[in-house]
Amino acid sequence: MSAEEVRIAHERFYDAFQKLDFERMSQLWAKDIEVSCVHPGWDLITGYDAVMQGWRMIFEGTGELRVRVDELRVICNEGLAWVVCKEVLFTTVQGMPVENVLTAINTFVRENDEWRVAHHHAAPILAGRPKVESGPEPVLH
Amino acid sequence: MSAEEVRIAHERFYDAFQKLDFERMSQLWAKDIEVSCVHPGWDLITGYDAVMQGWRMIFEGTGELRVRVDELRVICNEGLAWVVCKEVLFTTVQGMPVENVLTAINTFVRENDEWRVAHHHAAPILAGRPKVESGPEPVLH
Repeated sequence: MSAEEVRIAHERFYDAFQKLDFERMSQLWAKDIEVSCVHPGWDLITGYDAVMQGWRMIFEGTGELRVRVDELRVICNEGLAWVVCKEVLFTTVQGMPVENVLTAINTFVRENDEWRVAHHHAAPILAGRPKVESGPEPVLH
Repeated sequence: MSAEEVRIAHERFYDAFQKLDFERMSQLWAKDIEVSCVHPGWDLITGYDAVMQGWRMIFEGTGELRVRVDELRVICNEGLAWVVCKEVLFTTVQGMPVENVLTAINTFVRENDEWRVAHHHAAPILAGRPKVESGPEPVLH
């Protein structure tokens, strides 16, 4: 089932992320299209090599990390997919635990019979922005 | 040609946005799936009604607006599509022109023989974040 496969690919992505496993992360991204990435507050990065350089910078600058994915929504067909979600990042800063909630979307393309990451976009939730009451509980499409 | 149709749907979206045309904006979004939206720095909004409420708040709080879309990349197949881009927003604050560059991704689903918006995610580029040199010039896939 396609949505379940996308969900698994999405888990693999966040697993490589929280383990700061660059080798694994580099395998999860698409090779046949021009991938792109936006880390929280960063400018748009395009192209596989530049995206990998971004991850290397993130991983080198991060000590300990756990990521929980919340409010996950999958949209997919046989060749393209995306997951809208929230990332709850747990890190330690000077020995103190820090929790950071981000909004994110990750897109996937089917390549070599695998779902590979095409674009990652995570963004900070800034204080003082308007709040809108969202709809009912998320469902897996 | 599908990518061209997506590009046109993308233009329609930014046209409704910069004209602050709520009626038009409300027609451009998908009705058959649970849509979602992240405005710059905002929390994730889910569900058609909540997403429209968000646009209403944005439109009511905005005087004059022009949006230029840069570095546009389209990925699509026959049923799903997304566009990664940068938004250059021109507004006036107390009579002074202000330019604001954002990163964005917009996803689309094919519904009633039309490309309709499924998710919009725009994020601020924050000062002091690392810079990564991107790859070659964007191409339309």
